[in-house]
Amino acid sequence: MSAPLDKEFAFLLEIEKLKSVSRATPVADNSRRENSAEHSWTLALYALVLADQAAPGVDVMRAVKMLLIHDLVEIDLGDVPIHSQGGTAHSSTAIQAAEAKAAERIFGLLPKPLGDDLHALWHEFEAAETPTAIYAKSLDRVQPVMLNLAGGGGSWLEYDVSWDQLETRVGAKIARGLPGVWAAVQARIRPWFTARGR
Amino acid sequence: MSAPLDKEFAFLLEIEKLKSVSRATPVADNSRRENSAEHSWTLALYALVLADQAAPGVDVMRAVKMLLIHDLVEIDLGDVPIHSQGGTAHSSTAIQAAEAKAAERIFGLLPKPLGDDLHALWHEFEAAETPTAIYAKSLDRVQPVMLNLAGGGGSWLEYDVSWDQLETRVGAKIARGLPGVWAAVQARIRPWFTARGR
Repeated sequence: MSAPLDKEFAFLLEIEKLKSVSRATPVADNSRRENSAEHSWTLALYALVLADQAAPGVDVMRAVKMLLIHDLVEIDLGDVPIHSQGGTAHSSTAIQAAEAKAAERIFGLLPKPLGDDLHALWHEFEAAETPTAIYAKSLDRVQPVMLNLAGGGGSWLEYDVSWDQLETRVGAKIARGLPGVWAAVQARIRPWFTARGR
Repeated sequence: MSAPLDKEFAFLLEIEKLKSVSRATPVADNSRRENSAEHSWTLALYALVLADQAAPGVDVMRAVKMLLIHDLVEIDLGDVPIHSQGGTAHSSTAIQAAEAKAAERIFGLLPKPLGDDLHALWHEFEAAETPTAIYAKSLDRVQPVMLNLAGGGGSWLEYDVSWDQLETRVGAKIARGLPGVWAAVQARIRPWFTARGR
């Protein structure tokens, strides 16, 4: 067997672990928590389906690729819920450093140049500066909102999230890449928060 | 909200159901069965990672897109395990007709031309005639083999699969699009079957 193929198999076995990483958001029928592998699949489809909402300069298939790999670092770290620790945990320096180290290990399993390419793509996603990364980040924020709405509250209930917190932690990031989508989503979820006096 | 966006949201909510479709293959740590959503995510990564093994004429990103949607019909039908009913169920006319009907319903949720495009892509995958579809089909067959090997047997145990059955039902299809990969995988899995006298 060729050495590159050995490395490819090692990586493809390693990523199976993402199926054991639980997220804060329950699946749509509320029967269990979503895992990060199936979440990544959903986002890739969000990227394909909402392409008509993407800003100029977005490379949709590059966003698909980015979203397929964006959570692989959670194999080492687990998922850090967006509303945990009052919404601050997600952007802490310690977590960002640990994620960078995990990315190095995981993409380092692959032969070059493929591993370097995917590693660079992960950094592009994290930096959220290119139109494609901004689009991908917005999708990553909007899908859990749709799931929480479908499931009757999901992680909003668990973390007692208010409308203002949702606007700040989530809505602003969705609106950055997908303003039309956020406007439409706001109209759908506002009643849930109003009904709970949040 | 625009009508296209309403339709896009309806589709994106519908596909969440794929997370509840169980497959015959257990996840790598054998703790539960894999579901078809996370399976689809894994295959998209297989397509990216094994691109160096693809035949001339394969469009890797088109294969990624194809693999992301290839199992959506299971929302209506469930998964039909490859080794069930002596390996015959998967290709029965009745199942193929039911799948075609499910594809029509599910892709029909989307606005045109997107729905038609993805529907055509699904038919291309099923027909397995283009280099890209042949590549995607081979990946769909190889990943469960790698999972069964990682998990100590998985669905091979459940369906008491012999080496000859694996060659016919699975190996021939892997070899069609990925001969080098199948040769490498054979070397890895042969000992498991030999040890069991199968």
